[in-house]
Amino acid sequence: MQRFALIGAGFIGALHAQNLSLHPRASLEFVADIDPARAATLASEYGAQPIAIEDVFTADIDAVLIASSTPTHADYVERAAQAGKAIYCEKPIDLDTPRAERAVAAVRLAGVPLMIGFTRRFDASHAALKEVVAGGELGSLELVQMTCRTQQMPPITYIEASGGQMRDQTIHFFDLLCWLTDDLPVEVHVIGGALADARVGELGDVDTSIATLRMASGALVQIDSARRTGYGYDERIELSGSEGMAESRRQPHRHLALHKGGEQVLDGLHSDWLNRIEPTFYAALDTFVRGLEGEPVDYPDASDALLAQHIADAATRSLQTRMPVALALKRE
Amino acid sequence: MQRFALIGAGFIGALHAQNLSLHPRASLEFVADIDPARAATLASEYGAQPIAIEDVFTADIDAVLIASSTPTHADYVERAAQAGKAIYCEKPIDLDTPRAERAVAAVRLAGVPLMIGFTRRFDASHAALKEVVAGGELGSLELVQMTCRTQQMPPITYIEASGGQMRDQTIHFFDLLCWLTDDLPVEVHVIGGALADARVGELGDVDTSIATLRMASGALVQIDSARRTGYGYDERIELSGSEGMAESRRQPHRHLALHKGGEQVLDGLHSDWLNRIEPTFYAALDTFVRGLEGEPVDYPDASDALLAQHIADAATRSLQTRMPVALALKRE
Amino acid sequence: MQRFALIGAGFIGALHAQNLSLHPRASLEFVADIDPARAATLASEYGAQPIAIEDVFTADIDAVLIASSTPTHADYVERAAQAGKAIYCEKPIDLDTPRAERAVAAVRLAGVPLMIGFTRRFDASHAALKEVVAGGELGSLELVQMTCRTQQMPPITYIEASGGQMRDQTIHFFDLLCWLTDDLPVEVHVIGGALADARVGELGDVDTSIATLRMASGALVQIDSARRTGYGYDERIELSGSEGMAESRRQPHRHLALHKGGEQVLDGLHSDWLNRIEPTFYAALDTFVRGLEGEPVDYPDASDALLAQHIADAATRSLQTRMPVALALKRE
Amino acid sequence: MQRFALIGAGFIGALHAQNLSLHPRASLEFVADIDPARAATLASEYGAQPIAIEDVFTADIDAVLIASSTPTHADYVERAAQAGKAIYCEKPIDLDTPRAERAVAAVRLAGVPLMIGFTRRFDASHAALKEVVAGGELGSLELVQMTCRTQQMPPITYIEASGGQMRDQTIHFFDLLCWLTDDLPVEVHVIGGALADARVGELGDVDTSIATLRMASGALVQIDSARRTGYGYDERIELSGSEGMAESRRQPHRHLALHKGGEQVLDGLHSDWLNRIEPTFYAALDTFVRGLEGEPVDYPDASDALLAQHIADAATRSLQTRMPVALALKRE
Repeated sequence: MQRFALIGAGFIGALHAQNLSLHPRASLEFVADIDPARAATLASEYGAQPIAIEDVFTADIDAVLIASSTPTHADYVERAAQAGKAIYCEKPIDLDTPRAERAVAAVRLAGVPLMIGFTRRFDASHAALKEVVAGGELGSLELVQMTCRTQQMPPITYIEASGGQMRDQTIHFFDLLCWLTDDLPVEVHVIGGALADARVGELGDVDTSIATLRMASGALVQIDSARRTGYGYDERIELSGSEGMAESRRQPHRHLALHKGGEQVLDGLHSDWLNRIEPTFYAALDTFVRGLEGEPVDYPDASDALLAQHIADAATRSLQTRMPVALALKRE
Repeated sequence: MQRFALIGAGFIGALHAQNLSLHPRASLEFVADIDPARAATLASEYGAQPIAIEDVFTADIDAVLIASSTPTHADYVERAAQAGKAIYCEKPIDLDTPRAERAVAAVRLAGVPLMIGFTRRFDASHAALKEVVAGGELGSLELVQMTCRTQQMPPITYIEASGGQMRDQTIHFFDLLCWLTDDLPVEVHVIGGALADARVGELGDVDTSIATLRMASGALVQIDSARRTGYGYDERIELSGSEGMAESRRQPHRHLALHKGGEQVLDGLHSDWLNRIEPTFYAALDTFVRGLEGEPVDYPDASDALLAQHIADAATRSLQTRMPVALALKRE
Repeated sequence: MQRFALIGAGFIGALHAQNLSLHPRASLEFVADIDPARAATLASEYGAQPIAIEDVFTADIDAVLIASSTPTHADYVERAAQAGKAIYCEKPIDLDTPRAERAVAAVRLAGVPLMIGFTRRFDASHAALKEVVAGGELGSLELVQMTCRTQQMPPITYIEASGGQMRDQTIHFFDLLCWLTDDLPVEVHVIGGALADARVGELGDVDTSIATLRMASGALVQIDSARRTGYGYDERIELSGSEGMAESRRQPHRHLALHKGGEQVLDGLHSDWLNRIEPTFYAALDTFVRGLEGEPVDYPDASDALLAQHIADAATRSLQTRMPVALALKRE
Repeated sequence: MQRFALIGAGFIGALHAQNLSLHPRASLEFVADIDPARAATLASEYGAQPIAIEDVFTADIDAVLIASSTPTHADYVERAAQAGKAIYCEKPIDLDTPRAERAVAAVRLAGVPLMIGFTRRFDASHAALKEVVAGGELGSLELVQMTCRTQQMPPITYIEASGGQMRDQTIHFFDLLCWLTDDLPVEVHVIGGALADARVGELGDVDTSIATLRMASGALVQIDSARRTGYGYDERIELSGSEGMAESRRQPHRHLALHKGGEQVLDGLHSDWLNRIEPTFYAALDTFVRGLEGEPVDYPDASDALLAQHIADAATRSLQTRMPVALALKRE
């Protein structure tokens, strides 16, 4: 049984708590939060103990799951690493890349496992896509198309603290891109605008954008991101190569069809991102647990986190300069 | 060049005239009709000559295409056969099966080719389905599902002269069934009603029905037929066997999708049967022409016409008696 | 909090135990089984107490969930009713309809709630279909098509004890039919065979069948059932009326598409019935709990259980006699 | 009856000849070609007269259809304009934009109608998309995604004479973009490579590319183009706005589905562009004819031709400079 402490008892923390309680070989032992009452409530719901944050790192646990607010992540990662605990950390480690790199250095020094919460890799259809690509069924990759559009604009305060669309939203697809292609971009160019909410533009950010990337292999990539649609949460990935094309398709939320007159009305997409990707959280956690048990597993680690962050930084520079930006990345 | 005379210058006759003019190795030489003016108009449109019906059979032609009214078919078939002309005849040869059998006897005596206008066999998707079944991909057949629903109720005078839903509409699917399965039914049971138009019931006919059949192989079949839907022309065939299932699917009339709110509105089905199956007429004619040229071809012939008619007769008896009816059919 | 005892710690019992533990307002207090060790194991997994079956009915609980073997159901239903407990019972109450009716009489006398495990009503797409029909969007119903095909033949011992395909498998769709149409059949006719496994025929049963039914409204219905396909679990429902058609569609198990050459390879259906309908078990339980809390809810009750059973009995007679069977059912 | 002379008896010329012969209110009177024998053969097939190119412009005709090789277009356009004939010209007017502008000036001076062969506008699904956008159903446009991938690499000699991927292939989608959005781009950036055939790179051209554009309205656009896929001809357009998204979808070439094991094998895309868009040629011609008859019609004219060409020129510069290129276009 892998014993966990959870830091952060908010929305995502509660989701992790439920998944930990469902997992047959993981246990939620402690819950900490900057608000002790919130920690206590969540802990009691799952038979765990509330704990002060500073006591987490000395508690009798195997792993720390960090789901607190972004600015706290790097510090908790370092303290967990120094305490020799395995770490599952929501992205990002820190919005400031040098700060994130220092935290990763501490993790490497300590030699503890670190998984970053890029859970979309664990989506069943995306994972099947990865297998198709890795199996060579598409030949050499040539064109990649990714769509990443959330239904509803988050609060402007969220946007303000988010690091910008590239670092907050598109970063998940930068990670998926590197993972699916087993390749790295050498150039990125982004066009964007505040088309959904002018206040986003006043913050120097965009809510709608298209990033194009050239990969080291020569493959060409386009990723569109939107903060608000009029039709639900839209996530779609398509890879085309010399011998075929594979697609992780848009997903309807149900399977009803109504034929009337000249039309066929089908159920549309999921109403929000959580409905669409919720199963990925359990799958990600399960992989992390199996890794703790010694099974060789593949999950997004510290290197992946930094790679995606470097791409997001370059993409942000491209938005600011309106010019393509070259990238010189290396996998460690 | 295969030289044709066309008898019948109505709606279907005009469609055949156009296809004959498009075919590079067929020519429309003569057009006859009970209304000479109508024959003259259609003939002039395609550079053909009008001709009296009684002169068709002695004209300098290779083949007669019979698209006149149903009660005239058997007589024209016999006269064409006696004249040694090849025959393409719209279904049925005659609503009275013994009368149709006499006409077929004349055809056989003369040894001329006869093709019956069961054109759905030439639909590209149905033909691909036939290949899948014949190739053994489904294993042994177990369940067949056919849907045959036209959008709009024909005029009640049409219904009255039609021989009933089984002989007029469902008969196409009885033919498809025997052709797709390379098998024959041993039992048929039909339930039906006049659900769309009560006047159909007063004629002793039905406008909505479900036929179930047991094939000699043991496979079970259901065919639903409707004279009127609220959503376009619906034709669909599905065959399931021990190793798989294949389906010739419903077809949208265009490929537009509109996502709004929680819905996805796609284009619906074709608005009527002709829009859906029009290409089958040219494909059927082309096959007939290739047969005339000596190529070995497969098309619905006199035997197929009689088999489908015997099934339709038995299905009609089942509707009348409300009991299953046994069939003892043989391919000749 | 609604307190439950579970009788039956097998496969379906374990699924109910998990759902009870997930439900925020239900608690699994006791687990009983004919095999006390099995009860103890399952109980310990969810923090419940093992209990002897005979003690269930006097325990401090609100409801009994009966998931034991079929021949025990009627007896447990009666004892739970006499003890004043609410009852959730897996179908059927008893394969012998008079015996089931006696148990229902006891339930009615006691005035306790009884829900029968026809969980497919709680499938999100089927439920949306019900809303479409009830909202009048289809006009008057005319044709219903149901497909119910499980992937893998169950063990022959299961078949032998099952009461036959109509009572074991198709019965779920007889219930769905009455529920979706808010109507009852007046006639049923079934053709069937042992196409997948000859031993099924030796038991006097069928593994492949087509039932046709005429509803009191005049609507016509076809239900095909198969015990084994070569392509996964196939469940599909379609209702067509004077103004439109609605379909709860086949569901792919994932959303990957691979385009190569002239083909598009999509993920197929779910590999078995449980993968397809597992969410309906929680949804059904939740409805039952809300009913216990006093909320007006709609679920399959004793009357529904008996109606479906009468239809299944008549369908079985039709298979035996090879004739249509009339039905005179009434909702109570 | 609108009387046509056709210049160019090659592949596309023959397609136009067939459509002219099918159209009830157009007649193909003359066929000219640089190879008189080829002209004579095509003419005889459709009952037309062969004619020398220099005699076309003084012949008794209403319109000239120019389907000869690209370098001849501008000259024939000018001569037809000076002769007062209506003009249907395959794209482009000339690969050199100033040369094309001079020809357009002659057309404007003469006041004759000119239609350019951007026939994709007449695709039924694309046209339905235009209606959805123009009807305001999507709100304000934000993201556009276009896919334009032909199955098979054309001969390298074709590529060499084509003006490059932007001017030869992507230009159709630049036109569709302006037409669908009723807007013009203000900036274009393209990344590309010779991923399918290295010889394309030696010519200074690309065979795979992604263009991103910013429209005057602020909407963002991505267009990917490929000269060779492993899965058929892929054309797809999607527009997303503040209130919804609409898509002209990928189209299967048939409607067969085969379910086996865990897979569902559907028919793939059309095998080449002509199979996909052939009906647009007749629809375009019909619109042109209706315009000649005085009906107010909308078709791609000289202005549209020049707009698309300016965008293609800028896109080509972006490929060469690897930088975004600003555009200052105006509709005339």
